[in-house]
Amino acid sequence: MTERVTVTIVGGSGYVGGELLRLLVSHPHVTVRQVTSRSQAGKFVHGAHPNLRTVTDLRFTSLDEVERADVLFLAQAHGEAATRIDHWADLAGRIVDTSADFRLRSPEAYETWYGAPHPAPAWLDKFVYGLPERGRDAIRQSRYVSGVGCNATVAILALAPLADAGLLERVVADVKVGSSESGAVPTAASHHPERSGTVRSFMPTGHRHQAEILQELGDLDVAFSVTGVELVRGALITAHCTLTESVAERDLWSLYRKAYANEPFVRLVSAKSGIHRYPDPKLLAGTNWCDVGFAVDERSGGRRLVVIAAIDNLMKGAAGSAVQSMNLMCRFDETAGLTFPGLHPI
Amino acid sequence: MTERVTVTIVGGSGYVGGELLRLLVSHPHVTVRQVTSRSQAGKFVHGAHPNLRTVTDLRFTSLDEVERADVLFLAQAHGEAATRIDHWADLAGRIVDTSADFRLRSPEAYETWYGAPHPAPAWLDKFVYGLPERGRDAIRQSRYVSGVGCNATVAILALAPLADAGLLERVVADVKVGSSESGAVPTAASHHPERSGTVRSFMPTGHRHQAEILQELGDLDVAFSVTGVELVRGALITAHCTLTESVAERDLWSLYRKAYANEPFVRLVSAKSGIHRYPDPKLLAGTNWCDVGFAVDERSGGRRLVVIAAIDNLMKGAAGSAVQSMNLMCRFDETAGLTFPGLHPI
Amino acid sequence: MTERVTVTIVGGSGYVGGELLRLLVSHPHVTVRQVTSRSQAGKFVHGAHPNLRTVTDLRFTSLDEVERADVLFLAQAHGEAATRIDHWADLAGRIVDTSADFRLRSPEAYETWYGAPHPAPAWLDKFVYGLPERGRDAIRQSRYVSGVGCNATVAILALAPLADAGLLERVVADVKVGSSESGAVPTAASHHPERSGTVRSFMPTGHRHQAEILQELGDLDVAFSVTGVELVRGALITAHCTLTESVAERDLWSLYRKAYANEPFVRLVSAKSGIHRYPDPKLLAGTNWCDVGFAVDERSGGRRLVVIAAIDNLMKGAAGSAVQSMNLMCRFDETAGLTFPGLHPI
Amino acid sequence: MTERVTVTIVGGSGYVGGELLRLLVSHPHVTVRQVTSRSQAGKFVHGAHPNLRTVTDLRFTSLDEVERADVLFLAQAHGEAATRIDHWADLAGRIVDTSADFRLRSPEAYETWYGAPHPAPAWLDKFVYGLPERGRDAIRQSRYVSGVGCNATVAILALAPLADAGLLERVVADVKVGSSESGAVPTAASHHPERSGTVRSFMPTGHRHQAEILQELGDLDVAFSVTGVELVRGALITAHCTLTESVAERDLWSLYRKAYANEPFVRLVSAKSGIHRYPDPKLLAGTNWCDVGFAVDERSGGRRLVVIAAIDNLMKGAAGSAVQSMNLMCRFDETAGLTFPGLHPI
Repeated sequence: MTERVTVTIVGGSGYVGGELLRLLVSHPHVTVRQVTSRSQAGKFVHGAHPNLRTVTDLRFTSLDEVERADVLFLAQAHGEAATRIDHWADLAGRIVDTSADFRLRSPEAYETWYGAPHPAPAWLDKFVYGLPERGRDAIRQSRYVSGVGCNATVAILALAPLADAGLLERVVADVKVGSSESGAVPTAASHHPERSGTVRSFMPTGHRHQAEILQELGDLDVAFSVTGVELVRGALITAHCTLTESVAERDLWSLYRKAYANEPFVRLVSAKSGIHRYPDPKLLAGTNWCDVGFAVDERSGGRRLVVIAAIDNLMKGAAGSAVQSMNLMCRFDETAGLTFPGLHPI
Repeated sequence: MTERVTVTIVGGSGYVGGELLRLLVSHPHVTVRQVTSRSQAGKFVHGAHPNLRTVTDLRFTSLDEVERADVLFLAQAHGEAATRIDHWADLAGRIVDTSADFRLRSPEAYETWYGAPHPAPAWLDKFVYGLPERGRDAIRQSRYVSGVGCNATVAILALAPLADAGLLERVVADVKVGSSESGAVPTAASHHPERSGTVRSFMPTGHRHQAEILQELGDLDVAFSVTGVELVRGALITAHCTLTESVAERDLWSLYRKAYANEPFVRLVSAKSGIHRYPDPKLLAGTNWCDVGFAVDERSGGRRLVVIAAIDNLMKGAAGSAVQSMNLMCRFDETAGLTFPGLHPI
Repeated sequence: MTERVTVTIVGGSGYVGGELLRLLVSHPHVTVRQVTSRSQAGKFVHGAHPNLRTVTDLRFTSLDEVERADVLFLAQAHGEAATRIDHWADLAGRIVDTSADFRLRSPEAYETWYGAPHPAPAWLDKFVYGLPERGRDAIRQSRYVSGVGCNATVAILALAPLADAGLLERVVADVKVGSSESGAVPTAASHHPERSGTVRSFMPTGHRHQAEILQELGDLDVAFSVTGVELVRGALITAHCTLTESVAERDLWSLYRKAYANEPFVRLVSAKSGIHRYPDPKLLAGTNWCDVGFAVDERSGGRRLVVIAAIDNLMKGAAGSAVQSMNLMCRFDETAGLTFPGLHPI
Repeated sequence: MTERVTVTIVGGSGYVGGELLRLLVSHPHVTVRQVTSRSQAGKFVHGAHPNLRTVTDLRFTSLDEVERADVLFLAQAHGEAATRIDHWADLAGRIVDTSADFRLRSPEAYETWYGAPHPAPAWLDKFVYGLPERGRDAIRQSRYVSGVGCNATVAILALAPLADAGLLERVVADVKVGSSESGAVPTAASHHPERSGTVRSFMPTGHRHQAEILQELGDLDVAFSVTGVELVRGALITAHCTLTESVAERDLWSLYRKAYANEPFVRLVSAKSGIHRYPDPKLLAGTNWCDVGFAVDERSGGRRLVVIAAIDNLMKGAAGSAVQSMNLMCRFDETAGLTFPGLHPI
């Protein structure tokens, strides 16, 4: 029988922190030791995360009360983890950070995309990018795992088989996202009468997650827009791909099947009829799936296809991949705590 | 270690059937043997229930291929179970029927509310009403358990502590419901451009679920309206209660706490601040919770309160209570397969 | 030909202010002179109200720049109009105030429901309640008209024919409302991931709008809850009415037809089939309609009915009634500027 | 004073027919003579279009009762107008057809995209493409005007200034659309529990509207996907454009301003701050606007930009452009009947 590890979540009142908590309180090999919140220290966690009412009677603790634990999850605002990383490393042998702080290996890339020098560049090489599908072994052997950008995750998993095969000449992608991507703090943009039913181009160009895509897939010609739609959880990418050569549809399917044959959380969607022919993020709420499918442009002579992939941005795009990475680091069953299949209808 | 039982779902392509399937394929003590569908026999169940893609490779079978099983779940349209109940009883020792056919004990009440004589009145006494909170022991000792009306469920659980204490003089309730209550068949009423964003009074008076409320809570003075709102899963009752005598708020809380102290799926919601002060069905999607709270009318001298309760209509209001009933009949842990806590945000 | 009047809107950056502006910039007898905003003085009004892009090139002015105008609309937060009412009365011969400050005639009632003494009690008698259906002549002869509570409006119009006929023994009403009722300022409660898809009991008892209902309809036995649903604009009341005597359905229809025969903005909804049998607020977005219908409880012997009424809370429940009142005061066609019929589908 | 014309709508029970009716019953120069419906002949039009309750007491007539009128609007399913076009031309001197039948000038292109020979190829040259922004004078001088594809409309208006300037090397566009695009007939795809909250790739490649784009803008390299999102009305295009040469942002704005300076229904959106920086279809419900904006990719050296445009698919993308075309043909004010500015919030 696998032993249990103690886990503490730093930054537990936000949406990623709450999702980590949901996953970890029912994880078969984890005991949640502490959950921090600056603003809600002393209060029950189910005040912030009402789904956990009666599920746990944990209370938030303040940041400076954090004690030693086997694994530390950092789920703070971007920039916070890096500024105290030595402190956190003193408290736990293993760290999973869900922020953007340690996703990029290159300090130059960090400065380019985040607009300031990295606060702890010496740490960049110690962290591994936390997407198991791109580096399962590296994660297993690492003690420090970064988070993943949700839009980057869905893009990387959509494109990886083509990129790895050297087939991608050019990609233009639009990602449709839900409102939880912007976090738990109310703003003018998140005010319900404004956000409800919107189709909002909040990042037509220059989205930071491009940096992760390029790092993980190589130096692609990629254009990338992000559009907010009426949805709380979920991200769907529509990636128009131009290939370097003509490829038959069945060979593309073989490529994807081979790439993802052993992946526990990537599903290929290839229905020929019905209303569920392509991935749809609404079916993935609460799950760690990434659903991937595609359509070949019949008029392109096998040179163009549209790859479609969907995730729950808070799960596969954040907390789910983080727990999957912890499972790998701790040598647990990779799917432990992550088996919720999702709801239909929803 | 508990042994596994074999289970077959008759009528598995609808929403309740799909939800039963989701619960049962990952139930620790169940092997799903067959799932029937008239229209989709031979096809994979994940065509109808895309959340189960890769989770199960079951295919639908036709109705006349159903073989013996330990437990039979009937999830057909109202009226179908009753017409073939002898047939089904030959095939399984235990039956849980989620339709309306065996909810009422009185053939007269059935005829009054459903507009036709009951097709198998001799069977009515063999069935037990499938709401564990109203008859746990009876369910344990029964072989035949009925379904529950979703609106009835949320009403009964909201009002039972007051009714059982003889405190209810009068109730006027409005139930807000999601679109999944109307099932999986498209109609003019379910057409998205019409149903989206609607606040539709589809049953202002005379809803059949009243019959169940009266049967379970006694001869109450109850008025009951049902209003469709923008929501797929969920039902929330707003029950204005007039009491037979003045009761202090703390005594009302005691009454509810006592009534539900040992209930694994009823949670009391009594937050004094924040945005989650009352039950909200959106937090319960996919769960078997019934959340219950109330507010006393300060101007009423303790004679009036508004009880608010929420469920997922497909779970506690249908498939969840059905599986909970099976757990009781089969002497499994009552919560087996039903522990998903729900998502936030969603 | 009717002359034009000059109009200024004080408090023009909120939702009611924006709606007044939309109505008044295309009103055939109005020239909008100024629109104020504390936070956005100097900026184009279409920054706050993007629907008015290219429709008007007005800019917000600050509060202390307000000049004389024929009519002043006050659309500020509750409590602000009353504290400076003498100032505003110096600047305009006619005032329409959409806040709660002058809705109640009794200073005692104001203190009871708003928790503080009225700041300008001497002005209460000078104002007329701004719901034309309850006092068209009084409004015509007045110079000062109050706003209306949106929930009060839909309740009053639903119940008035029964109340005026002395038929109402008791009313229990639940009002379903959209998110725009809470105004334009983001809060934790309005944060999209929380508000989207919610069914939130934000005022189960004690809603202030009850005071208006009692003032306008007399001393009724009324209980009143308000539930937020997924909707931006709109309010629907489900009012369970117990009558003092048995009344035939056709006589109830006669009563309503007679009451509203000459009302330009009240429509009776009495379809016997189809999906639009009862009022639905989603069809009323942007319109000044109040749709009213009802269903008699067949089991009640003509003693119980459920009256259903719907409005756009920003229109008939606020800006629409305000402009209708101005039309009356200024002797314009009562429907001027208010003829948008609404959209379907929406 | 302009005289009134008589107008008949053939195919009046669908969503485009209903929108035509809404516009025409309050059009200052139109008398609606007849509205046809196969299934609802004899019934009030407000049964199908509940927004028109009390606005008009017209009833549907059957197809064979259509009498002479000045203008005939055909709003039938694709393929129907072409098969009886001689008949309709006998009944009216002017025809506006909103279907796809007469949008393409080339019978070959029609057969390629619609999969069958055109039923009345001789008529193709008599029709003019009904988008005033692309051929105002031709429409004025024509008697027969085609409809426009909604997705084509938003694409053409987004791209025309660049295409006309010969600057477009390549376009990859994703169009996000509401559920009303699929019409008024319920299907499995439109069933609310399935359609609500979906992000559905229903046409990743090969959308027929591409044919219109190529016809109107010339032989572009364009890829085009359509994604259904939670929305009833509206279409938003996210068009990634690669230019043939580097262009400064201010020159691009000049190009767009010049192209649309005199267009009554095209608005440029160029806000630098706030939450309304780009076009959003939710603000356009019920209006005839096309909002256009763009963002230049700063990393592209002026060679790439993302153009964003939004319309109400039932208005500018169908009924609105049709009425605008009629206004031109009949020499009315081009904006007559089309001045509703839209709602905020909504």
